[in-house]
Amino acid sequence: MAERSAEMPQEARPDAGTLQVLRDMASRLRIHSIRATCSASSGHPTSCSSSAEIMSVLFFYIMRYKQSDPENPDNDRFILTKRLSFVDVATGWLGQGLGVACGMAYTGKYFDRASYRVFCLMSDGESSEGSVWEAMAFASYYSLDNLVAIFDMNQLGCSSALPSKHCIDIYRRRCEAFGWNTYVVDGRDVEALCRVFWQASQVKHKPTAVVAKTFRGRGTPNTEDAKSWHGKPMPRERADAIIKLIESQIETTRNLYPQPPIEDSPEINIMDVRMTSPPGYRVGDKIATRKACGLALAKLGDANDRVIVLDGDTKYSTFSEIFNREYPERFIECFMAEQNMVSVALGCASRGRTIAFACTFAAFLSRAFGQIQMGALSESNVNIIGSHCGVSVGEDGASRMALDDIAMFRTIPTCTIFYPSDAVSTEHAVSLAANAKGMCFIRTTRPETFVIYTPQEHFEIGQAKVLRRCVCDKVTVIGAGITVYEALAAADELAKQGIFIRVIDLFTIKPLDVTTIISSAKATGGRVITVEDHYPQGGIGEAVYTAVSMDPDIKVHSLAVSGVPQSGKPKELLDRYGISARHIVVAVKCMLLN
Amino acid sequence: MAERSAEMPQEARPDAGTLQVLRDMASRLRIHSIRATCSASSGHPTSCSSSAEIMSVLFFYIMRYKQSDPENPDNDRFILTKRLSFVDVATGWLGQGLGVACGMAYTGKYFDRASYRVFCLMSDGESSEGSVWEAMAFASYYSLDNLVAIFDMNQLGCSSALPSKHCIDIYRRRCEAFGWNTYVVDGRDVEALCRVFWQASQVKHKPTAVVAKTFRGRGTPNTEDAKSWHGKPMPRERADAIIKLIESQIETTRNLYPQPPIEDSPEINIMDVRMTSPPGYRVGDKIATRKACGLALAKLGDANDRVIVLDGDTKYSTFSEIFNREYPERFIECFMAEQNMVSVALGCASRGRTIAFACTFAAFLSRAFGQIQMGALSESNVNIIGSHCGVSVGEDGASRMALDDIAMFRTIPTCTIFYPSDAVSTEHAVSLAANAKGMCFIRTTRPETFVIYTPQEHFEIGQAKVLRRCVCDKVTVIGAGITVYEALAAADELAKQGIFIRVIDLFTIKPLDVTTIISSAKATGGRVITVEDHYPQGGIGEAVYTAVSMDPDIKVHSLAVSGVPQSGKPKELLDRYGISARHIVVAVKCMLLN
Repeated sequence: MAERSAEMPQEARPDAGTLQVLRDMASRLRIHSIRATCSASSGHPTSCSSSAEIMSVLFFYIMRYKQSDPENPDNDRFILTKRLSFVDVATGWLGQGLGVACGMAYTGKYFDRASYRVFCLMSDGESSEGSVWEAMAFASYYSLDNLVAIFDMNQLGCSSALPSKHCIDIYRRRCEAFGWNTYVVDGRDVEALCRVFWQASQVKHKPTAVVAKTFRGRGTPNTEDAKSWHGKPMPRERADAIIKLIESQIETTRNLYPQPPIEDSPEINIMDVRMTSPPGYRVGDKIATRKACGLALAKLGDANDRVIVLDGDTKYSTFSEIFNREYPERFIECFMAEQNMVSVALGCASRGRTIAFACTFAAFLSRAFGQIQMGALSESNVNIIGSHCGVSVGEDGASRMALDDIAMFRTIPTCTIFYPSDAVSTEHAVSLAANAKGMCFIRTTRPETFVIYTPQEHFEIGQAKVLRRCVCDKVTVIGAGITVYEALAAADELAKQGIFIRVIDLFTIKPLDVTTIISSAKATGGRVITVEDHYPQGGIGEAVYTAVSMDPDIKVHSLAVSGVPQSGKPKELLDRYGISARHIVVAVKCMLLN
Repeated sequence: MAERSAEMPQEARPDAGTLQVLRDMASRLRIHSIRATCSASSGHPTSCSSSAEIMSVLFFYIMRYKQSDPENPDNDRFILTKRLSFVDVATGWLGQGLGVACGMAYTGKYFDRASYRVFCLMSDGESSEGSVWEAMAFASYYSLDNLVAIFDMNQLGCSSALPSKHCIDIYRRRCEAFGWNTYVVDGRDVEALCRVFWQASQVKHKPTAVVAKTFRGRGTPNTEDAKSWHGKPMPRERADAIIKLIESQIETTRNLYPQPPIEDSPEINIMDVRMTSPPGYRVGDKIATRKACGLALAKLGDANDRVIVLDGDTKYSTFSEIFNREYPERFIECFMAEQNMVSVALGCASRGRTIAFACTFAAFLSRAFGQIQMGALSESNVNIIGSHCGVSVGEDGASRMALDDIAMFRTIPTCTIFYPSDAVSTEHAVSLAANAKGMCFIRTTRPETFVIYTPQEHFEIGQAKVLRRCVCDKVTVIGAGITVYEALAAADELAKQGIFIRVIDLFTIKPLDVTTIISSAKATGGRVITVEDHYPQGGIGEAVYTAVSMDPDIKVHSLAVSGVPQSGKPKELLDRYGISARHIVVAVKCMLLN
């Protein structure tokens, strides 16, 4: 229910002149929107129109920001998930904006402890997306009273009247049931908009939802409320006539200027974050990379106080609990809502306010593929950790085994994919990810593995490690993560039989160390075997094929998991699905026979 | 709010003896659950325990089904999304079950018009998933009064107390705000459970939610309500002691038998569906494959009355509107909720009750990756259509361009991927998909393309078409969809210069026509160029690399889109991102120089 907040004091109220200027600003936005969509031959002039008053009030009366410095950390934030042709931000990912706004608001309230506020404008159509309700639950659970969500209820979906046909009341009840302070307002009434946004700023402990009833094509006669205009620019003659009409409604030439931000965000430094000591493991120690990852996050948290960790109700499994124990004030429990977790992480990492790591089972990340794509499009530096990859998960069964996560992240432009094999390389992956530009994905393994690198080993993105090498190597075997150990065991077994193989630990899957792969392949008669705890499609094998494709003297054979695996013991499953040492031995021998 | 339904009549009430049997059945389920998780070394005996009374009442008092024939179409359906070790169904995909249940209930109410009812048991933790709220909105919008969702509120998430800590009331209000008839009940009280499930069966036009307050580990002393037992089997000594204790509470040996189903589902036939006439296009006609797909769906709908189409608020763009116009009673508008759309389709297609096609922009399907995986694990025959693939989308920009959908669907075991280039092959793709086992994905293109196949052309899954072939071909160029036209244009241009190339239209990307690819490659000096409107990762190029990897005489070069594309005109974008005829010409010449 709406909070019974104080009446808006006289001095906060816009006078009649200001209200007219806000109306005129809205008219100008409408004109701009029609012109922009006409010249781009694409866009949604009608849905832009419905939000014009909301935008005018927010940008010229409510929000505090420096027009000359849009990236200023003290500025109020504005997130748009519907497409407005007069605002120049990456949008179009319907239903994802509110989660990003939650991350910004969480950062403002709990990490920056600053005054900036966050506004998110959504269309009613996109509130069918479940991700919106994940974000709604998150915002109220964390009392994000610096967050305002505006539902622009313009009644028309893309192709049909919406489920709730103007049932503003349904939206009000849903927002209230999700714990939001909720106002219903006529979205064309600039005075009412000024009032509810002011009231929202007075409410404590609750986010505010503004359910604004608007009409598409408002101000453009014959298109208002008409289905047929959606997604279509207007013919130029019509556009000119409509622009004239809107212009005739403009009464003032006055401009309004936004209030300056309150400058109370802390100075921070997230550049060049270094661990305070080398990895504390000895060769031969036994520890799962997922646990080493949790420990590394805590260590990184010690090195920089802007490191934050998010988890989706799996913290005892991903070991992000270790970070949570050390730095509970920098840990965000996102519950079972992976889409929202990734969006929140994107919001937290935006404007470089935090170094964010979001953790869950790698298998659950497919739920957030759309949000991960959004992260790439917005050039986010967010880091994502997926534990429990592959059949080596063991007893928990197919629904817990990520076998396509490498394929998914490989398609993400600018994404770096780490797949460390032991605790030392895991710690380096975490540290490198913290400093890398663009999105990073770290794939960790459930069972324990031996530490194979010394604390002094140096790691770089795109640099593989050659673990076994001698002049008489006959085949190059490329592994990553758990399969590195299978490759090493195969090398031992084959060596007993007088067959020597070169063993490579990729460390990063993307970018791939093409130089090392090709030079090793050439040194071993052009014979390469890849072995991965992943499906063949889009995985390590295909990445290697691509890398060597133009080299006619290199032959690659790929060992990978196929079908839907059953559950079993990790060791047994590696063998049953064809990626164990035994299978590598057979593949090497076959390749040498041909 | 809960409907004021009639009091349960005396004859429907369980007597005291029956109630004790139901309690004893619950105890036996608990014992079974402890034994099963002990022997599998995995599982969640505590969360199983919390639902024992719910299961006992549903399976032995409420549900109507033939125990001997679990797949009988007249049986009531039961969907489980939490893991219960005593029920043998594919589960583990949290938050997805309710959407599947919606699809079954929709099918029961609107397609089968039968008496069977659908029950879905969920944990409170998973109701954080947004997909649950997409399904909640869907079920009330479509008045699915044959659907009952049970929220087992056992208070403990996997790693922390839940957001709503026993705040049963929050769940009640959310369910009500989403339009459900809602009861709150003590989940340990078999009599109360019998009553609310009976009441649910009397309510019209609304689905029913039962918010059941339970405790994890109920009946197992010292584990009840204890966090530490989650996901852990008990040590055997402890298990034995607890089993003894539970056994001591069992008072009866009587068995209960479920009521038989009401046999009123229609006989249907979804086998061997054939179009009633060959494609009605002439070579040279110009039509977008997305439109041909909409037309083909309508034609298929004419051939079989169990063909249904779902769309996610994009029906004017995917052209599923054509089907909707012809068969509105078999069209399901799922609004902007792709996760739920795919789950509903899985539910509709289950038990072979319908041939379901779910349509949206291919770019939006990444939102439903988790649901698509679930479909593969459950061996669903559902068909998914993704329109507007690649940069050829044009002006709408990167967020609308699917560039990773092939990679995504290639990772799905048993999925067939169709990527037709013209209207004729599109119609065949739709018809083949309707009859194929396993999931199918059809990728369609936004711009118009020429019809290149005659109505008599025969198409098969896994069979590519060789469009240009002569004895002096020097290079094989493999395209699919829009790039087939670029390859043909390149062939024309090169022919003028006396260079001949073989042009292949893949038609299906998975399975790949390896035979045709390899024989063509060999006939053209081992030189192959792939060209795709998709990212290189996991795409057609990598699929072809894999196919020819063990053949040292074949060299493949892949042309694909990279980076985040800008918007522009389709033709311009094909050229800017390196997959136009001009680039193919250059690649062919380069390859011939090397």
